[in-house]
Amino acid sequence: MELNKSPEEELDELELLTQPGREDDLRTFLLLLHPADLAELVDGVDERTAVAILRHLDTERAAEMVSELDPEEQQRVLRMVRPEELAPIVGEMETDDVTDLLQELDERTAKQVLMSLPEEEREDVAKLLDYDPYSAGGIMQTELVSTPLHSTVGAALEAVRDKARDVDILSVFVIDDAGRYAGHVALQDLVLSRESTPIEEVMEPKVAEVTPDVDQEEVAHLFDRYSLVELGVVDDDGVLLGRITADDVHEVLVEEAEEDMLKMAGTAAEPEAIYSGNVLKVVAQRMPWLASTFMAGLFASSILSAAEVVFHDAIILLMFVPVITGMSGNVGTQSAMIMIRGLATGHIDKESLTAEIFKDLQVCAVMALTCGLAATGIVSMWKGHLALGLCVGVALTVSMLTASALGSTEPAILKRFGIDPAVAAGPLITSINDISGVMIYTAVSSVFLQYLK
Amino acid sequence: MELNKSPEEELDELELLTQPGREDDLRTFLLLLHPADLAELVDGVDERTAVAILRHLDTERAAEMVSELDPEEQQRVLRMVRPEELAPIVGEMETDDVTDLLQELDERTAKQVLMSLPEEEREDVAKLLDYDPYSAGGIMQTELVSTPLHSTVGAALEAVRDKARDVDILSVFVIDDAGRYAGHVALQDLVLSRESTPIEEVMEPKVAEVTPDVDQEEVAHLFDRYSLVELGVVDDDGVLLGRITADDVHEVLVEEAEEDMLKMAGTAAEPEAIYSGNVLKVVAQRMPWLASTFMAGLFASSILSAAEVVFHDAIILLMFVPVITGMSGNVGTQSAMIMIRGLATGHIDKESLTAEIFKDLQVCAVMALTCGLAATGIVSMWKGHLALGLCVGVALTVSMLTASALGSTEPAILKRFGIDPAVAAGPLITSINDISGVMIYTAVSSVFLQYLK
Repeated sequence: MELNKSPEEELDELELLTQPGREDDLRTFLLLLHPADLAELVDGVDERTAVAILRHLDTERAAEMVSELDPEEQQRVLRMVRPEELAPIVGEMETDDVTDLLQELDERTAKQVLMSLPEEEREDVAKLLDYDPYSAGGIMQTELVSTPLHSTVGAALEAVRDKARDVDILSVFVIDDAGRYAGHVALQDLVLSRESTPIEEVMEPKVAEVTPDVDQEEVAHLFDRYSLVELGVVDDDGVLLGRITADDVHEVLVEEAEEDMLKMAGTAAEPEAIYSGNVLKVVAQRMPWLASTFMAGLFASSILSAAEVVFHDAIILLMFVPVITGMSGNVGTQSAMIMIRGLATGHIDKESLTAEIFKDLQVCAVMALTCGLAATGIVSMWKGHLALGLCVGVALTVSMLTASALGSTEPAILKRFGIDPAVAAGPLITSINDISGVMIYTAVSSVFLQYLK
Repeated sequence: MELNKSPEEELDELELLTQPGREDDLRTFLLLLHPADLAELVDGVDERTAVAILRHLDTERAAEMVSELDPEEQQRVLRMVRPEELAPIVGEMETDDVTDLLQELDERTAKQVLMSLPEEEREDVAKLLDYDPYSAGGIMQTELVSTPLHSTVGAALEAVRDKARDVDILSVFVIDDAGRYAGHVALQDLVLSRESTPIEEVMEPKVAEVTPDVDQEEVAHLFDRYSLVELGVVDDDGVLLGRITADDVHEVLVEEAEEDMLKMAGTAAEPEAIYSGNVLKVVAQRMPWLASTFMAGLFASSILSAAEVVFHDAIILLMFVPVITGMSGNVGTQSAMIMIRGLATGHIDKESLTAEIFKDLQVCAVMALTCGLAATGIVSMWKGHLALGLCVGVALTVSMLTASALGSTEPAILKRFGIDPAVAAGPLITSINDISGVMIYTAVSSVFLQYLK
């Protein structure tokens, strides 16, 4: 499917080509690779070879390659490059990629590179650096082609020809007399129209726009909903500031899904830290959640321990603790995950939230009663003791209901407090449910105790 | 951010407009809505109103609206529309959307609609229907603009003008004399060049291509890696069959992430069944995983129960079961999730798999030893009994190591057997780890028993 060789074959070939006297061959070899493949190659070699590769590329391809590198790799490789060498490469990059890059460089180098940019681009980048990297402002670029509302198709095509040597253009933004975003024309529709046609006749009115502070997840949601190719970013007065393109949003979707899942797994983590970090770095990312699970586990133990007098007379009750904690953990995670994904994808919104939580409770009531009855039946017959079966069954039903109520309300509560709901589906909910499950089980057991001795 | 009213406001307005005699107002109201918003509106009304809305739209907008509907909604609404009415609407839809739609209709209607399509489109759709819906063939469309390798920019622009009334064009595919995919030209580069320029001078050689059987997740991976706008789908001889566009891939990314997460939550489920289904349907989706967790919990209980003689002499040991099961569940889920996401996003490939599993074991060894030592210290001091502390600590270390070894190897094993690895991070891994944790704890306890009495 990919037309290039495997990374291993490429690395072997590269090693041969970096011998002295084979510089022309090296240049040809590099010329045949896509910037993304170059970036992967650089990923696999030491800093000196990486810099040698960079120096063999022309400025434009070097810029594309640097844009494709992971943040960690940018840091590792570009540390070895002098600011004077870096400046022309950065000059060729798109403003959103420049912003990402400058955040990875050390402060002094970043400043030197920034100062070397042409004044207009420097100002744009400086503004972009102020936005939260996970907001619309943080992923937008300022390069775009615009045309006034009262111009013609010919004028718009002229504007494309003026700018398009440097940037990828899929559509032309139409702005009104005050610079406000009014709509856009797909390049295709410009090609299909006569040059004298007024822009107003071919433009599509804007469907959506965002201000720079809007979260990138909301941006991805708009792209998905309206099958957008590009989205305009505007200030509070509606004046066009920049654009977000579909491939930026791909990155957002992959990033958000990955982060959500890693969060749910209880690894607070940036994906890079998990996959490229050394053993101790990964431990540092994963340990906090384990530590909190550990505390929760000890707390659950201390509840059981405090109620020793209950269990001393009916030690068999303790054998069923794994059923209680396993089931409340599972049903709570299910409810939390359904809410989290629903909120993230727009299946659930503010208006439908209460209804969805109520529906989840109904679903869980059916499941908790079914499981409770099954537990009563199985345990009574297995141990030949109806009261024991009833005790486990009642405790299971109550703890499952509590777990699902906690699981389905937690994501929305965390979101209200500005915490990413994804953390709710991970160890947090399991820990809380372990504790509440054990508490409920202890309480129910002490009620049933007189029939169990 | 979205420029339209809230769905509730729209529904209220719609109710007023469906009164007799207000048909012109209704038409105007519908004209102002984006097809995606129309689809959401239809989602909220009964079948009769939905069909009334559909009949008030012109064919093109009706086609766009139907394409935006969820599969369940397509089924619900279009059941009420006669095949003769549906045919012209389907005729305006893109082939990939037609394919998706026909799979939702009852067989008789689907056949009638298919037969009503123009011959060429009918053949295309019939072929597309044969592909797995989650493969490249299942998400591609046959509409595209191509130009021969030996043509000029002028000829390519002519080809765009010929076809582009019906389809969205971002680039023109270049094919060699045998019809094989050779490369592509962005519309922008056509606009920037003289009409007499040979295509070969402006085209970009192809970076990647897929055959129809390639999994949609791999397609998404290629889009991400090479920042593609479009991807060509070819047969075994390299002949161009169709194209996949960036917005199809958005859907794939959202779909795959959602499915993975719901799977991990132990809801086997299609997202639609969870969010639009009634209570019993959702129970049917969630219950199987709960049932298996229930069985696993009972199995863990039976292990503890079988070892009653061990625990009878040291009932306090049973109090620490929640620590053991909680910790092995958490660390196993972490390891499994890291592998699953790594495999899905390409952070981990076949070559690096063994190294990553080994790294994970090192990480987990550090964490298991740390937690084991902490458990020994805390439990010894809390209960004033060193042997008890050692017993819990040793059991915790061994069970965490086992859990992480199971968690990190399971996804790759499941993938080998053609099972989606995402199921591994859910209740499956937790259940297995609960059982292995309880077994290890019982075994370690019986060894330490003589020092605990």
